[in-house]
Amino acid sequence: MKKVLFATTALVMTAGVAAAEVAVWGDGRLGLRYESDTSYTADSSYNVINRLRVRFRLTGESDSGISFGGNLRSDQAASAGDNASATSGDVWVSGAYGKLTVGDVDAALEKAVGDLPEVGLSGLDYWNEFAYGTSSEADGDASMLYEYSIGNANLYASFSDGYYGNGADERDTQSWSLGVGYDLGNYTFGIGYEKSDYTVNPFSIEQDDGTITTVFGDLGNAADSESWGISGGTSISGVTFKAAYIDTSSDNENWDSTQYGVGAGYEMANGVGLSAFYRKTEFDNVNVEGRAFGLGASYDLGGGAVVKGGIVDTDANFADMNYDNTLADFGLAFTF
Amino acid sequence: MKKVLFATTALVMTAGVAAAEVAVWGDGRLGLRYESDTSYTADSSYNVINRLRVRFRLTGESDSGISFGGNLRSDQAASAGDNASATSGDVWVSGAYGKLTVGDVDAALEKAVGDLPEVGLSGLDYWNEFAYGTSSEADGDASMLYEYSIGNANLYASFSDGYYGNGADERDTQSWSLGVGYDLGNYTFGIGYEKSDYTVNPFSIEQDDGTITTVFGDLGNAADSESWGISGGTSISGVTFKAAYIDTSSDNENWDSTQYGVGAGYEMANGVGLSAFYRKTEFDNVNVEGRAFGLGASYDLGGGAVVKGGIVDTDANFADMNYDNTLADFGLAFTF
Amino acid sequence: MKKVLFATTALVMTAGVAAAEVAVWGDGRLGLRYESDTSYTADSSYNVINRLRVRFRLTGESDSGISFGGNLRSDQAASAGDNASATSGDVWVSGAYGKLTVGDVDAALEKAVGDLPEVGLSGLDYWNEFAYGTSSEADGDASMLYEYSIGNANLYASFSDGYYGNGADERDTQSWSLGVGYDLGNYTFGIGYEKSDYTVNPFSIEQDDGTITTVFGDLGNAADSESWGISGGTSISGVTFKAAYIDTSSDNENWDSTQYGVGAGYEMANGVGLSAFYRKTEFDNVNVEGRAFGLGASYDLGGGAVVKGGIVDTDANFADMNYDNTLADFGLAFTF
Repeated sequence: MKKVLFATTALVMTAGVAAAEVAVWGDGRLGLRYESDTSYTADSSYNVINRLRVRFRLTGESDSGISFGGNLRSDQAASAGDNASATSGDVWVSGAYGKLTVGDVDAALEKAVGDLPEVGLSGLDYWNEFAYGTSSEADGDASMLYEYSIGNANLYASFSDGYYGNGADERDTQSWSLGVGYDLGNYTFGIGYEKSDYTVNPFSIEQDDGTITTVFGDLGNAADSESWGISGGTSISGVTFKAAYIDTSSDNENWDSTQYGVGAGYEMANGVGLSAFYRKTEFDNVNVEGRAFGLGASYDLGGGAVVKGGIVDTDANFADMNYDNTLADFGLAFTF
Repeated sequence: MKKVLFATTALVMTAGVAAAEVAVWGDGRLGLRYESDTSYTADSSYNVINRLRVRFRLTGESDSGISFGGNLRSDQAASAGDNASATSGDVWVSGAYGKLTVGDVDAALEKAVGDLPEVGLSGLDYWNEFAYGTSSEADGDASMLYEYSIGNANLYASFSDGYYGNGADERDTQSWSLGVGYDLGNYTFGIGYEKSDYTVNPFSIEQDDGTITTVFGDLGNAADSESWGISGGTSISGVTFKAAYIDTSSDNENWDSTQYGVGAGYEMANGVGLSAFYRKTEFDNVNVEGRAFGLGASYDLGGGAVVKGGIVDTDANFADMNYDNTLADFGLAFTF
Repeated sequence: MKKVLFATTALVMTAGVAAAEVAVWGDGRLGLRYESDTSYTADSSYNVINRLRVRFRLTGESDSGISFGGNLRSDQAASAGDNASATSGDVWVSGAYGKLTVGDVDAALEKAVGDLPEVGLSGLDYWNEFAYGTSSEADGDASMLYEYSIGNANLYASFSDGYYGNGADERDTQSWSLGVGYDLGNYTFGIGYEKSDYTVNPFSIEQDDGTITTVFGDLGNAADSESWGISGGTSISGVTFKAAYIDTSSDNENWDSTQYGVGAGYEMANGVGLSAFYRKTEFDNVNVEGRAFGLGASYDLGGGAVVKGGIVDTDANFADMNYDNTLADFGLAFTF
């Protein structure tokens, strides 16, 4: 339903050249977005939502049957073409030994444990996503992800040049991660571990321009950290449930944190979809905690058009101070 | 003649999915450009003209027959993919109730009243275009345009987060606009109204890098303003004529202005085209006025190639000071 | 082998419109890169190599048989769409009178004399390339290149708005160049001349972000300069050899320089390829000299996938100071 591929014809073919293909598709959306406390200045705002992205999926196969390919979005075309390390798009190679993907990828811990269901038309600042050290929250350096499947298990290993700030000494800090996910019929299970040369601050928000802000002090910390996480899910009468828990232990104990949350999703036969999440984050040793609650609904109009809307309520406390923000959006999402 | 579309095949089709399509086409040009007084520094300049743009037109239809789509240019791909409000490209949805377009669109006043004929290969700083409050002269915030047709009348309504400067307090100033255009066989007629939280300075020029400069003081003004405009056109012996008048009344009366102009175009059967415009702008209460006169010619080589050239002479007076600038270009324009 | 073209169908055709075509293809790579002395700070670095680029080739033909077209890369889409002079991509027109290409093109001297064989997966800072005044080393202004073939000779003439710095007085400095290349069966030969309003510093490196740095002082010099170059090549038992010599004479004699080098390449029937170069650069009148030596190997996996690796050793001396840097990379390159 998502992919309209071009029929391609290799006009310049030589013997022994396997088929390579470029698929062009896209997505778009239009609507309105409301925020009760924009940028924590106590000002509310309405904004037009609109965007259009053309997507390219490139695939090929070597003579000996090794698959390779890549994915590129029009809005990330420039940063996917850097001479050395591109921070957008991805390139992969896959064979009997597994799949290696390089570029803008999730790390092993995030691949195994995952996030909560997304709500709304525009993601609503993606409060449904946990803060992972090597996640793509920051427009980070290129990462490598290795995936291998055995039976019902998916094994993940990753290496990332993650960064959490702009200072020279904060860049090129590295992170390693391992994870495994199980798919046992009606149950799913994931567990992972991550070791980083820094500590991510879970009280952060990705702004629309890609910068990262945080309510409480700096984003991240130069102290080393270890994180581990676990998640489990099941499906009852067509409703899928998920719970996840992530614990981060930093060399700076003020940055030790715990994140957890639950989510649910329901796709009805009549085209209606519902999703919800509740997520909580707290520092272990200082009096800072936050939570977000989100509800979303959608209705599939067919042909790639979906009506979507959502609301997210966030609440964060820093000692005596309290920050509330409510986000909502509504509109149409398209896939071409 | 303009559009070369790919034959698309939906390789991944499920029942009930209507056809979605991505068309890829493009335009290019090469030539030379001359300016007698570049950036009002009294230096003349020659420049190579060259550009190439790939264009994407995405279309789809829901099961119930609602059309939707979007348009994207390669040079605007990045700014069309913003997470909330994209400032380039557009996304639209259309049905029996009319058409709603969101993104980089003209406002209702400009849709109804329009501009004068363009001359030359490269637009020559688009002196043929009037200054509209919610036009896309500045790389403005996303706008919404609603269009509805009844008989020979096209109704327009728009909302825009226009801005005319870079200061924080100058942004997110809004503008509303209404317009109607009639197409009465050999005559066309348009009228519209616009109310803005700011006043546009009609003595402004869009530089090649997208920034807006002006000969006389700041661009725009934080005072509220109202504009109304009217235009009419006809066709005599294959020559089309147009005249337009736009009046702006600002809360700061020094910024009250009047713009008007006439234009003509002629497309001959042998592939030769001619166009011309004369445009005048004056502040009502201060001694500032300017005018531009342009002439253009083209010859269609067939297959998407057109020889084009033009010359624009501008003259602006600010009290005792006088600024003259002559622009000219010549070359080939291509459509792929 | 490089090009997968879409089958295109002109859905909107009118009589007399020749076929225009948009071909979409791409390239990608993934691997690792090592540098022993990053940015001459004596720090070594490892980096992930990854990039993906979609490419567009637009072609058309006028009714009278004039060919035209253009080339655009996804990572350069924005800078190829400037209103006047785009610094990326190219647009061309071709007929019986020769071919004119405008945009990001090499100048006549570089077209005729050329560079040495590239080594490695990622170009390794392109030490195999000579410093040409109007080359595209700097993200320069648009250039025009005219090509015409007579028998075995290819004639080149070019004009460029080259620049070598960011100051206003350093821009819009122009350069003219002429060249001719001969293809005499098993021998090739090239000679060219270039006159510039500036002098290029051959001790410069293009960084990954496109900026130009240099080990010794400023890049370029406002003094006028003349360069001439000569190159010759032959093929013996399947091994191709090339030698080139470029001499630059500047109005500031401290900037007089000599560049020369040799290269060799070998493509075996079993898919293995080898390449090597040695390049030397020295100022004629001051005690500054440098050299680079590179080795590369590749193995064609078929289907557009090639294993590639390379190593480049550089050495530069400025009076008593010595700068050494070793670069190496390894990975997979893909063509889609």
